Amino acid sequence: MLNLRVSTSECWLAQVSSHLDELLIDHAHCEKKAAGVAMNLLFAYVDHVELVRDLSTIVQEELGHFHLVLDLLERRGIRFRKLPASSYAGRLHALAGKLEPMRAVDRLLIAALIEARSCERFGVLRDRLPDPELAAFFGALFESEARHHATYVRLAKLFANEETVAARLDCLAIAEAQIIAEGESVPRVHS
Amino acid sequence: MLNLRVSTSECWLAQVSSHLDELLIDHAHCEKKAAGVAMNLLFAYVDHVELVRDLSTIVQEELGHFHLVLDLLERRGIRFRKLPASSYAGRLHALAGKLEPMRAVDRLLIAALIEARSCERFGVLRDRLPDPELAAFFGALFESEARHHATYVRLAKLFANEETVAARLDCLAIAEAQIIAEGESVPRVHS
Repeated sequence: MLNLRVSTSECWLAQVSSHLDELLIDHAHCEKKAAGVAMNLLFAYVDHVELVRDLSTIVQEELGHFHLVLDLLERRGIRFRKLPASSYAGRLHALAGKLEPMRAVDRLLIAALIEARSCERFGVLRDRLPDPELAAFFGALFESEARHHATYVRLAKLFANEETVAARLDCLAIAEAQIIAEGESVPRVHS
Repeated sequence: MLNLRVSTSECWLAQVSSHLDELLIDHAHCEKKAAGVAMNLLFAYVDHVELVRDLSTIVQEELGHFHLVLDLLERRGIRFRKLPASSYAGRLHALAGKLEPMRAVDRLLIAALIEARSCERFGVLRDRLPDPELAAFFGALFESEARHHATYVRLAKLFANEETVAARLDCLAIAEAQIIAEGESVPRVHS
């Protein structure tokens, strides 16, 4: 369903489990950045009313999640602050083609894959974190990430036919799996 | 309340009354751009949690209004499309200082003035448009524009003291009034 080529490793779970405060701050930034990406796509492809409507709803939902994470941080006495991001999203965005309409397809599918990976990892956190509040928190976000993934894949089909989109999604999913398999030294949602 | 130095002229009302379709399309773009401006400010000053919370709420509300205008366009069979913007917002944004923290103050106060002008003009449209659906539509948006104005002015005080903010607001409001008094040949929310 999520088009991912590799599952999250035990190694990632161990990494973030010992740095939960940092993971939560990074998660807040991820929600904010997800809203920013959807907003940029909305501005870039404003001629497509279907896309504009769906993406503005996604922006609103991501900012709703952003508020939820800020509330959680506040309840736990964790100060929200700047944090160096993992290289994951930047490396994926760099794979987008330069020429339209394929650039639109790529940007939407890259957004779809980031949502898919968040969804998969929230599922891991829901199932494996011993802290019941955190497990429930990530569980509650799981469904909307899956829905956003599906929306982005559907929107990509406004710019290319079904086969082209499927082939490009395959190709980008392989690249995404490689980046995830490499991992990263900082504990992040997408490390 | 709105810190504006000049009221909207009869000339503007006459200009937009004869181009209501174009005004509505421009209005949709204005709501989208207002969301974009709030999002940019949120990203630029993410260290201030109060600002981040208030601005993400503003983004959500502006996108809610954007949806309302898209619905209205659809009901009236008007196609949402790209439209050359008036020069108003660009000329105001160009007045922002380059050095922080005064740049933050300026950007927030410029956003405040744009909200104030929208509010004032929505009041004119509510009171003067003969079309009851449109009059009610603009009337319903009046209050949130006024609230956004007040929020932006309050947030500016995170970056400078009350007197500095008041003086800068005075100065920018004079510039805003000059731009509005000049007017523009295209019928727009801020022409």
